[in-house]
Amino acid sequence: MAKDIDDLQKNAANYMALTPLWFLDRAATVHPTRTSVVHGSKRYTWLQTYQRCRRLASALSKRSIGLGCTVAIIAPNIPAIYEAHFGVPMAGAVLNAVNIRLNAPTIAFLLGHSASAVIMVDQEYFKLAEEALKIMEEKSNGGFKPPLLIVIGDESCDPKDLKYALGRGAVEYEKFLQTGDLQFDWKPPQDEWQSIALGYTSGTTASPKGVVLSHRGAYLMSLSVALIWGMNEGAVYLWTLPMFHCNGWCYTWSLAALCGTSICLRQVTAKAVYSAIAKYGVTHFCAAPVVLNSIVNAPSEDTILPLPHVVHVNTAGAAPPPSVLHAMSQKGFRVTHTYGLSETYGPSTVCAWKPEWDSLPPETQARMKARQGVRFIGLEKLDVIDTRTQQPVPADGKTIGEIVMSGNVVMKGYLKNPKANEETFANGWYHTGDLGVKHPDNYIEIKDRSKDIIISGGENISSVEVENMMYLHPAVLEASVVARADERWGESPCAFVTLKPEVDKSNEQQLAEDIMKLCRAKMPAYWVPKSIVFGPLPKTATGKIQKHVLRAKAKEMGPVRKSKL
Amino acid sequence: MAKDIDDLQKNAANYMALTPLWFLDRAATVHPTRTSVVHGSKRYTWLQTYQRCRRLASALSKRSIGLGCTVAIIAPNIPAIYEAHFGVPMAGAVLNAVNIRLNAPTIAFLLGHSASAVIMVDQEYFKLAEEALKIMEEKSNGGFKPPLLIVIGDESCDPKDLKYALGRGAVEYEKFLQTGDLQFDWKPPQDEWQSIALGYTSGTTASPKGVVLSHRGAYLMSLSVALIWGMNEGAVYLWTLPMFHCNGWCYTWSLAALCGTSICLRQVTAKAVYSAIAKYGVTHFCAAPVVLNSIVNAPSEDTILPLPHVVHVNTAGAAPPPSVLHAMSQKGFRVTHTYGLSETYGPSTVCAWKPEWDSLPPETQARMKARQGVRFIGLEKLDVIDTRTQQPVPADGKTIGEIVMSGNVVMKGYLKNPKANEETFANGWYHTGDLGVKHPDNYIEIKDRSKDIIISGGENISSVEVENMMYLHPAVLEASVVARADERWGESPCAFVTLKPEVDKSNEQQLAEDIMKLCRAKMPAYWVPKSIVFGPLPKTATGKIQKHVLRAKAKEMGPVRKSKL
Repeated sequence: MAKDIDDLQKNAANYMALTPLWFLDRAATVHPTRTSVVHGSKRYTWLQTYQRCRRLASALSKRSIGLGCTVAIIAPNIPAIYEAHFGVPMAGAVLNAVNIRLNAPTIAFLLGHSASAVIMVDQEYFKLAEEALKIMEEKSNGGFKPPLLIVIGDESCDPKDLKYALGRGAVEYEKFLQTGDLQFDWKPPQDEWQSIALGYTSGTTASPKGVVLSHRGAYLMSLSVALIWGMNEGAVYLWTLPMFHCNGWCYTWSLAALCGTSICLRQVTAKAVYSAIAKYGVTHFCAAPVVLNSIVNAPSEDTILPLPHVVHVNTAGAAPPPSVLHAMSQKGFRVTHTYGLSETYGPSTVCAWKPEWDSLPPETQARMKARQGVRFIGLEKLDVIDTRTQQPVPADGKTIGEIVMSGNVVMKGYLKNPKANEETFANGWYHTGDLGVKHPDNYIEIKDRSKDIIISGGENISSVEVENMMYLHPAVLEASVVARADERWGESPCAFVTLKPEVDKSNEQQLAEDIMKLCRAKMPAYWVPKSIVFGPLPKTATGKIQKHVLRAKAKEMGPVRKSKL
Repeated sequence: MAKDIDDLQKNAANYMALTPLWFLDRAATVHPTRTSVVHGSKRYTWLQTYQRCRRLASALSKRSIGLGCTVAIIAPNIPAIYEAHFGVPMAGAVLNAVNIRLNAPTIAFLLGHSASAVIMVDQEYFKLAEEALKIMEEKSNGGFKPPLLIVIGDESCDPKDLKYALGRGAVEYEKFLQTGDLQFDWKPPQDEWQSIALGYTSGTTASPKGVVLSHRGAYLMSLSVALIWGMNEGAVYLWTLPMFHCNGWCYTWSLAALCGTSICLRQVTAKAVYSAIAKYGVTHFCAAPVVLNSIVNAPSEDTILPLPHVVHVNTAGAAPPPSVLHAMSQKGFRVTHTYGLSETYGPSTVCAWKPEWDSLPPETQARMKARQGVRFIGLEKLDVIDTRTQQPVPADGKTIGEIVMSGNVVMKGYLKNPKANEETFANGWYHTGDLGVKHPDNYIEIKDRSKDIIISGGENISSVEVENMMYLHPAVLEASVVARADERWGESPCAFVTLKPEVDKSNEQQLAEDIMKLCRAKMPAYWVPKSIVFGPLPKTATGKIQKHVLRAKAKEMGPVRKSKL
């Protein structure tokens, strides 16, 4: 009896590899004439996108690119990078979407480490790619095998760049597509564990690590990101978040599942965001907190307020300051706060909103929303553990531990890095390296990256909490706090601040004292920054503030002298 | 190189069996205090439901019910059947939800065939279960091992029934739960292909077949039914569709994924539906077309029109007549039409609505919507094939073939029925046995069950199309058309019709002639029913019209005489 009920075998009719490639086939069947991707004057339908992806897969196959091969793409948010998310895995290969803000030596490292056999590159970044390849060749001692170079032209760019690339032997993307068959008979992977994408961590502290994702994980996450956000069929999505960043948090594939429309953006500005909302009826976009900051602080002539319809915003990448969340909500954006990492296919926790919070004071609401929250569907386990005992910390909102996760939306692992895999997957968890607490309502909250925590006189200071306080000062546009050496206390907080454009900057000393006064009124004395430095903040491609650059600056400043106390 | 990128192994942190049980754990974590299930004056929160399910799993485990065991439940839509959908598989066992409208001999067959070791039975159906067990015992020649009998009490029912059951040695459900541990450490299945549920086909033509479903399929379908319907987090769902019917089309599990609220209903009437919309803010419900029919024809004192908010209705089970769809839409219900079978976890195709259809005339809209449509996410392939050549028919909207499907939401197979499995899974397809066409826009439309098609003078007549025409007559409440033997043509259409309550029924002959006249104006002469019989229509538990009963009646009537032509 025990046998009968579990005795039925998988067969061709009832079991297939999970892959987001099915979504594209479905979108082309269900909504062949609906707009899939818009870029400037270019518009594609789902049938066209499907055909272009099949052509890409076919053209790659004809060049013997398939299972086990990696195809790199260096491009901003243009249709070709959307197509590569389907066309490359349809050929059986793995997509390596490269951060366009990286420098040539780093890109050379990534291309070499990933052994990318093809490089698709937007015309604007062709010279960067060429420089990277030159570095690879120089380092190779004669063993360099040049990859196939495909240049993607863009009407909105300088035609000289395209001409230059073609002169250097690159194949033009549209011509390459023409070598492929639009009826190409692509196959789903034999095994859903097969790799679909590779993305490199930003490597702020060490060499970038190559995060490998599976078809199964990408399928599940694509559905989860839609469900968690309440993003429905036919959504109009604005690409402010780079597609090279964790595959656009899987919204690349998700939009095919939803038969939605992608609006491309080469350059993200507040004005461009507002304009796309008006022009295309954008319903959803994702953005790092600094992008939200620029949206709420945009000059009124760049905005289209009040918004013509509800616009949903998914923000992650760092804890957004409560003051920014509050301002967004006042302008009519519905902000969902999520949190995750490249290693979890993008955001994998969400600060799920509760209707009963609607009646809380706005500041409390914003504080609730700034928490990282609860697990996505697809992330089966989420906890905060004591780093020494590996046991869960109490859900008291106070005890700090490491945030750990496990489930089907955790990466396969780091490419060619067994040591890092062993560490990161210790004890059946994926270890995020982020420090946080678990609140009594089961919501987690990040207190810091383990390397961002400031230890002053043996006490932990959360740089995030200090930053949140500083944002309450009306003159502060952006703030970032890092540890600075301190003769008496070991470390003390050092703040880097960008002031709002309209603020009178003639007396910085007075402003710094004002901000410190506010801090002293709101937090323990040892949390108050001892130094405040004004100026623009260094950022990554996705708008994350580069704390390692600020830490280097703080180091240059030397230790805080005892006398200063 | 080929090796590196696919070289990373599954581990405890990045791979887990897909199972809808994760959804319940998540709902209890994210929304512990939100209402999960309402039944009369009873209300449970998600934390309580989780604890009750853990208790159930624990109590079953203590009785050695686990992997390989089947637990049957005979109950209408009450909290216990919702809980069984989680508690039983949490113990590792398989849930066999039995149709409460079946008679004792059929239930005896199901309980025996499934080898159910436990029977959970609602107090109203206890005597029915007892009768079934008696039949099993009589047939067993002394080898009968009585299953564990658990009776579920319900305050809204006659207390004598509960007392009777307890007197016969049944364990009371709430007491049984108390024997379980609310912190029971349930485990996901080792393998997601493990069986989660067993449901029997209605067996209108032969012995019922046991459809076996997997944890993997249930997980995927739960997400798909939410996404396809645009059913978001926190939905309030009314249980008009029986949970014993294909596990409530997987909405049982889906509601946990959405942290939504289930409103139970013992008896489905139009009045109860309207009243639940008003009282609980119901946002979604599923219903067979005959239920829709009763909703649109309800006397105005039973309704709460205009609706206080949009109510989404998912209908399936038979092609709803366009006239009914049109009337529902006029009342403000948003009807989604889906189609599927027990073998596909419930509906697996949807008539996805296109905004460009909004401007079509209402009747055309209803006709578009009456089509079965396109595949769900999770059903990877859908086609209509020529039954002889097994090749796809042209997408011309005319050529009839068999509807076939394949994908991850196709059943594991029929229990202990290798012959049926071989036939149903021939050539890599699940064969639905439904006949249909594929339209130029890729939407499929059922023309008939293969056994419902009427063959008159060698020509096929779609009984569904004849019915759709009859519904256009203002006096017709319900119509069902079957084949009747015909001396000249072999078969000819015979209609069974229920008239609307307000229709003057004194002259049935005149009414029959009126309806035939309408038919003659709208369809080929040989399609026009030669006989019309007035009266109530026999229905299954889910409100499907039982055509086999009508066919038997038509047989009793004898053949249509030649002279009648």
